[in-house]
Amino acid sequence: MRRIVYYVAVSLDGYIAGPEESIEGFVGSGSGLDQYLADLKEFDTVIMGRKTYEFGYKYGLVPGQPAYAHMQHYIFSKTLSFEKQSEMVHIKPLELEEIRTLQQQPGTDIYLCGGGQFTGWLLENDLIDILKIKLNPLVLGQGTRLFGDSTKFLQPQLIETSLYEHGLQIITYSLLKDNG
Amino acid sequence: MRRIVYYVAVSLDGYIAGPEESIEGFVGSGSGLDQYLADLKEFDTVIMGRKTYEFGYKYGLVPGQPAYAHMQHYIFSKTLSFEKQSEMVHIKPLELEEIRTLQQQPGTDIYLCGGGQFTGWLLENDLIDILKIKLNPLVLGQGTRLFGDSTKFLQPQLIETSLYEHGLQIITYSLLKDNG
Repeated sequence: MRRIVYYVAVSLDGYIAGPEESIEGFVGSGSGLDQYLADLKEFDTVIMGRKTYEFGYKYGLVPGQPAYAHMQHYIFSKTLSFEKQSEMVHIKPLELEEIRTLQQQPGTDIYLCGGGQFTGWLLENDLIDILKIKLNPLVLGQGTRLFGDSTKFLQPQLIETSLYEHGLQIITYSLLKDNG
Repeated sequence: MRRIVYYVAVSLDGYIAGPEESIEGFVGSGSGLDQYLADLKEFDTVIMGRKTYEFGYKYGLVPGQPAYAHMQHYIFSKTLSFEKQSEMVHIKPLELEEIRTLQQQPGTDIYLCGGGQFTGWLLENDLIDILKIKLNPLVLGQGTRLFGDSTKFLQPQLIETSLYEHGLQIITYSLLKDNG
């Protein structure tokens, strides 16, 4: 079964974005970002919530088009629709069965792009296999939390950690006990 | 001037304790804890808020007595008082002048023990020089935040990072630009 990998930038105080989805202060260049971009090439599928997809509009994403040219996109939303939709973009209802079906299809691990609300739901349902955090030298104090409003307690297992330029670390954890 | 060093265990999602001050799930043994205990020997002074001092009662601390045998204790509180008080324990009002006076006295760096509310106030007043986090392989989802209710934005500078047993990392950041 394909694993779900939540690969995300986070501040020291647990935020993936500041107020109003601001990404000010996150490391935006250097060897850690190069590593992240290289790692993304390994995924053929990305899943995300509606807000995360729409966040891309700020950065030039055209509604209905893929954010990552080489990945199939599955956006989980009840309300989203497009006039013109790429064959690489699929809108699905937020249901366990949809995720399970996707995991059983052939392909690479699945890149979980965000955001807080969607990942919180996945976490609550034990659907996230791997957490890869880009730990930024940053304190935000407020914003979007790593797992949204989830209050789930869990003890991941550290798999590896690497230090990159500008004080960025990429740390990989296994979240599900049977990955240990 | 003596630096203030906030040395604290934190979860991946930015909590220093879970609900009702629970420390369940934090790494409690191994090479990282040994390092932490060795590092504590370097401090001759500890500062903390009232709640953090009182938290020690759960673990056998006698009210009015030092939590760390070799350190002078400064507890910042308007309300705290003891029937019997060690000469190593001092209660001070939460005022900038008190902190500045302490920093100007001779001695080692000052260990900032916690908790969220006191550290948030210190952060807002640019009084924390160094942040040393014991980054735990732990997701808490709720509890006491690293800097309490502070919403301050800042971009620390990574000084060093080390990996220890049980997936614990100790990561040191400089918080004040003139420490860079």
